Amino acid sequence: MTSSADGAPLFALVMAGGAGTRFWPLSRRSRPKQLLPFAQGRSLLSATVDRLSPLVAPGRTLVVTSQEVVEAVRAELPRLPRENVLAEPEGRDTAACVGWVAWRLARTAPGAVMLVVPADHLIPDGVALRSALSAAAATAFARGGLVTLALRPTRPETGFGYIEMGELTGAAGAHEVHVVRRFVEKPDKAMAEEFLAAGNFRWNSGMFAWTVKAIEAAIREHLPGLAAGLDGLMGATDTVGEPEALQRHYPALQRVSVDFGVMEKATPVWAVGVDFAWSDVGSWGGLSEVLPSSQDGVAFGDVVAVDSERSVLISDGPLVATVGVHDLVVVATRDAVLVVPRDQVQRVKELVEKLRSEGRDEIL
Amino acid sequence: MTSSADGAPLFALVMAGGAGTRFWPLSRRSRPKQLLPFAQGRSLLSATVDRLSPLVAPGRTLVVTSQEVVEAVRAELPRLPRENVLAEPEGRDTAACVGWVAWRLARTAPGAVMLVVPADHLIPDGVALRSALSAAAATAFARGGLVTLALRPTRPETGFGYIEMGELTGAAGAHEVHVVRRFVEKPDKAMAEEFLAAGNFRWNSGMFAWTVKAIEAAIREHLPGLAAGLDGLMGATDTVGEPEALQRHYPALQRVSVDFGVMEKATPVWAVGVDFAWSDVGSWGGLSEVLPSSQDGVAFGDVVAVDSERSVLISDGPLVATVGVHDLVVVATRDAVLVVPRDQVQRVKELVEKLRSEGRDEIL
Repeated sequence: MTSSADGAPLFALVMAGGAGTRFWPLSRRSRPKQLLPFAQGRSLLSATVDRLSPLVAPGRTLVVTSQEVVEAVRAELPRLPRENVLAEPEGRDTAACVGWVAWRLARTAPGAVMLVVPADHLIPDGVALRSALSAAAATAFARGGLVTLALRPTRPETGFGYIEMGELTGAAGAHEVHVVRRFVEKPDKAMAEEFLAAGNFRWNSGMFAWTVKAIEAAIREHLPGLAAGLDGLMGATDTVGEPEALQRHYPALQRVSVDFGVMEKATPVWAVGVDFAWSDVGSWGGLSEVLPSSQDGVAFGDVVAVDSERSVLISDGPLVATVGVHDLVVVATRDAVLVVPRDQVQRVKELVEKLRSEGRDEIL
Repeated sequence: MTSSADGAPLFALVMAGGAGTRFWPLSRRSRPKQLLPFAQGRSLLSATVDRLSPLVAPGRTLVVTSQEVVEAVRAELPRLPRENVLAEPEGRDTAACVGWVAWRLARTAPGAVMLVVPADHLIPDGVALRSALSAAAATAFARGGLVTLALRPTRPETGFGYIEMGELTGAAGAHEVHVVRRFVEKPDKAMAEEFLAAGNFRWNSGMFAWTVKAIEAAIREHLPGLAAGLDGLMGATDTVGEPEALQRHYPALQRVSVDFGVMEKATPVWAVGVDFAWSDVGSWGGLSEVLPSSQDGVAFGDVVAVDSERSVLISDGPLVATVGVHDLVVVATRDAVLVVPRDQVQRVKELVEKLRSEGRDEIL
């Protein structure tokens, strides 16, 4: 199926622009998280595109990434037409990325429905995902509005945004469709526990569906500055060509997330309730969700552990040998080794900052 | 000075046969501890020979090591004649090593005094060491017996053997000379504390002085089996040459330490009291005694640590980056990374055993 239930052409935008530091030293500027082999030995990006492919043909799958890694991304996705992998001159957050693709589609497929999925999440059950995306696409087409996929929470997680579900307005396939009452930024622990107990809160998955017309209209309404910038970009594309237009206009686009800039302001927004195993693979600690793990923790690559507990031990080259460690993350590559207690993995960015400030770019 | 106070030629035996695993992965079969750069960037072995050199000329300094590393040892000691670096076909403990050198000297310098020092200890004050060795050599020559250097203990260490000092029998230079009442194997904590409180116990340094005649006589008396083996070795040396004689006879020599096999049984044994900074560099944890250290612990090589406490962080290649660790040992080389809590460093040998049993010889 490469069109939504009602015959509109169905496109997918895979957002692969991330360049986070949370997986340093395995991730580098030249190999961001979405290119790491966390999906049973394959990259998260490749697994994401493959999961979509029974629903969205490669020719209608667009990947947006950075200029720094665009060739690595193309190499990772040999089945995609080269021109479907688009490169931002610099990251301007998700609203600009979504807007750029919407503005492009408005010219070539103005009647299209557009799915948006991050490149760096792990969802083992592709059938369930496609069922959910298909329901979201049908809802977006039928109602002409913005649709978000709302995940059933399994724990009082403080690392995600939440969606408060409002009135049940129908169903799409096996999925309930609600009006979104409000989006909530990452809560504290007490609030997250309240949300879980209340029952009508869900995790914001970062996956969306909308018609090209609806997202264009929403950006024009809620982010007029971005819309003007995108108009300028498309105009310049016509006159000087896309590469030069991008260099000139893209870095000046308003920098805001699609969640904050559009979804939290638009009404109505619909939420399609979904319920499948999902991980945003957010940190070394979270790898136990996606890599084979035991009570020792996670071991990946050439690892020999004696009496290790609840640790994440990863080798991308040298042997990693441990004795008697617990709750520790050790990641070894050919040129850098990271050691950090599991409850402090978020501090890896401090380390990366320190290395940057010391001019250690060769290692970043 | 290259003769003892009374004109007897003074030789030194540097025992460099160790092949321990406590410093894996920095130490390997091909690079044992004595070749590690723990002496201000130079190897412990090279520092040991240099410390001796104002007292014992290179031509009279003999180094015994293993066949596996003999060429590496020669390369490390370019000022020593090649033939002064002797290779055991296999390690047979210290009595065989001492005996072999004594039997050899009995032929070429039967009136000599012989110093014995381990190659892998660190003694920053070379002047104090030479003063002590000189006093021990003079004592050995004057009294014709066995002399051990007895270190003033600074803590109730359970990792060393102790010497109970008996009657004060005189002085050599600034050093008191006592009769040894007894040698005590490594004590438990309570006993070590008693020894420290008693005041007349000292650490067994593993450094000795004796005349060639005295050590030969003591071996013949207390280790007749070893003496017979050494006689056989020397006889074969005359007929088939030393290399073949060694291959044939050395592996059959009685395996016992000079402490247990000779010193604990011989009477009288004299102890020269010495008092200088000394480390046997016994484990990763002990490196804080010999490497530049701060309250963060020890960092050596390419190390970036954020909020690390009391840790030993060593790189011999890749960057070692830590955040928020404490009381941890991390050692990274090009092909292996070790992570172990500081209070469990003695378990590194378990790890090495496991690697050996898994056939990972390339990494040992």
